[in-house]
Amino acid sequence: MEYKISDRIASLKPSAIREILKATAGGDVVPFSAGNPAPEAFPVDDVRKITADILAKDPITALQYGISEGYTPLRETVKKYMSEKHNVVGEDDDIIITSGAQQVIDLASKVLLNEDDVVISESPSFIGALNTFRSYKGRLVGVDVEDDGMNMEMLEDVLKKESRARFIYTIPNFQNPSGITMSWEKRQKLYELAKKYDVLILEDNPYGDLRYTGEDIPCIKTLDTDGRVIYSGSFSKILSPGMRVAFTIANKNLIAKMTVGKQASDVHTPVLNQMIVNEWMNNYDMQGHINKIRENYKARCDLMCSLIDSELGDFVKYVKPEGGLFIWCTLPDNVDMMKFCSTAAQNKVAVVPGTAFMMYPEDRTQCFRLNFSTPTDDAIVKGMKILGEVKKMFI
Amino acid sequence: MEYKISDRIASLKPSAIREILKATAGGDVVPFSAGNPAPEAFPVDDVRKITADILAKDPITALQYGISEGYTPLRETVKKYMSEKHNVVGEDDDIIITSGAQQVIDLASKVLLNEDDVVISESPSFIGALNTFRSYKGRLVGVDVEDDGMNMEMLEDVLKKESRARFIYTIPNFQNPSGITMSWEKRQKLYELAKKYDVLILEDNPYGDLRYTGEDIPCIKTLDTDGRVIYSGSFSKILSPGMRVAFTIANKNLIAKMTVGKQASDVHTPVLNQMIVNEWMNNYDMQGHINKIRENYKARCDLMCSLIDSELGDFVKYVKPEGGLFIWCTLPDNVDMMKFCSTAAQNKVAVVPGTAFMMYPEDRTQCFRLNFSTPTDDAIVKGMKILGEVKKMFI
Repeated sequence: MEYKISDRIASLKPSAIREILKATAGGDVVPFSAGNPAPEAFPVDDVRKITADILAKDPITALQYGISEGYTPLRETVKKYMSEKHNVVGEDDDIIITSGAQQVIDLASKVLLNEDDVVISESPSFIGALNTFRSYKGRLVGVDVEDDGMNMEMLEDVLKKESRARFIYTIPNFQNPSGITMSWEKRQKLYELAKKYDVLILEDNPYGDLRYTGEDIPCIKTLDTDGRVIYSGSFSKILSPGMRVAFTIANKNLIAKMTVGKQASDVHTPVLNQMIVNEWMNNYDMQGHINKIRENYKARCDLMCSLIDSELGDFVKYVKPEGGLFIWCTLPDNVDMMKFCSTAAQNKVAVVPGTAFMMYPEDRTQCFRLNFSTPTDDAIVKGMKILGEVKKMFI
Repeated sequence: MEYKISDRIASLKPSAIREILKATAGGDVVPFSAGNPAPEAFPVDDVRKITADILAKDPITALQYGISEGYTPLRETVKKYMSEKHNVVGEDDDIIITSGAQQVIDLASKVLLNEDDVVISESPSFIGALNTFRSYKGRLVGVDVEDDGMNMEMLEDVLKKESRARFIYTIPNFQNPSGITMSWEKRQKLYELAKKYDVLILEDNPYGDLRYTGEDIPCIKTLDTDGRVIYSGSFSKILSPGMRVAFTIANKNLIAKMTVGKQASDVHTPVLNQMIVNEWMNNYDMQGHINKIRENYKARCDLMCSLIDSELGDFVKYVKPEGGLFIWCTLPDNVDMMKFCSTAAQNKVAVVPGTAFMMYPEDRTQCFRLNFSTPTDDAIVKGMKILGEVKKMFI
């Protein structure tokens, strides 16, 4: 039969980018396109021991239905940690445990967006978030990212113009894909503008723990005096993405609505997975593990940057990220970016064309994204040397 | 600040029923209101052993990102099982592993419903499904449930009238809340009508394995020659609901769209959880375990029915279910159903007022729902005796 697909899903079309990445699906491809943690980033022994303990001591809780808000001990643990360590839990705030941080984006959109409402986002931004906003038929308006975060004049212009703006979506730390970290001054300005124009902020912070150089900058949520910031945090990058455990902290009235939304989406996040995270946070060396990941990724990031310098030289511009997983490279104006990426793919190096991260397919960009957490050191060396060869075809 | 909540979520209001159930949240309440599996229904030893094996042999796969369609070996296992055992996998069909069967309902709605599109549902029906349809601003049209399933004349009348009908939602086996099983004749008629009026069918079958008497009736999906049926199956009632692993089988074009929808919802279902289910299906005695659950629940169902007869007698009418978890009781016309339920709650027995399962709050019903899987035998005896006392206040 012929299917009549809803407008919201019909508008999410497979893209040229997917075709390029398909070409690199076989073996023997250098995966600079992914965003997966390194296998060494998983605390396998901890998870093994914790899981055995839980299933020995409290199997029924782990296997029975849970509540939509999340496993109560984990909610308390995360609240305490995020309050003491990051000062992001306001007096009237509450927390839900979600099925990955993707679900925070989904629930915030579900609760806040009517059709044609506007989401203001850094441009470029995380494709998974942009697709979720699109799936609610939100209208995307992009604000350029500078070396220290969103262009604040452009943001204010957008806020002035867009009366249907509902929230500003930002990844302030080591942004995906740009690698940029928003300065403290811009975080304050962003909050001030959100207040002035009465919109919410969705602060997505999956990479916050992965800082390799420089000093931590307080979250935007620390500025939140009137319940304007929805904070999203995740265990995907420090414990395991396959586990699908993340959380959101926001004003309790918003959390109540997001809970209703979650109930209709997947009832609750798996209980065993939540118990594992809770046990890990309370009785294992989470901070030591994070430090190990940081060292590992810092070395890879340094390696990749030094190879960009030696193999690509002036051919690309980039800002060395202070953390996170990605490096954002800009090609010269006279180079066909899509062609560069597809030539790299033909030569068995997968990179993501910048178009993937733009608000609209017609938005021009000369950039592509590199990831350094997925490939091994050897693969980084091999892949960058190949990109150096590809470069020669374009100069 | 004041929040402007989206229309879709603003319309999901807390109800009088929630208030009644709140009154029974304390300890020492007989839980006839829940739908939880009995603790004895979990194959705890199997899960313990399987999980240890997986985390010993293949921890990185378990902890790393997976693909949105689901863990490939599990997809193959379920497809094979559902094909050989239930004959529900058509040549052009495909499968996604979902985060519970609630997510099948969510994804089907996401892919198929525009605002004001119509969902035709058995009335009464599962509140979780109804809320999901509402969360997509679908318009609900109910069709009465008779002792052998939907009233087919009423269904055809609705189909004639509702040109925006997109799909028919049905729980054909041991329906929640009515306990009713749709006859083979009505399943055929339902499919024929769906074809005639060119709508889809969402066949939700979470209780299919829990038959205590009578013969299995083939799924509606077995009749599907033109990709019209979206089948939903779950491991919640035979393995563990806390694990959140379910699946949907449908035409590959629909599955492709649902996969796009899932990516925007939660990226993928946790990998470890999927690996556990796969291992259990392949190398453990799933069928033996299902048989044990059936015996256990059959005894509870028999016990509860005999106590309805002895304690409530002619005061309620009910159809003894051939399986599932619920008994649907109808009070005499002159009894105030809501008052009966709240009096039961005051006397520490929680039952769910039938209103919860109706399309609209103004739909009248004299029914309430009893569950026999959650309470122990002792609790069933105690609770039914209390309901016998409550009855006396109403005659």
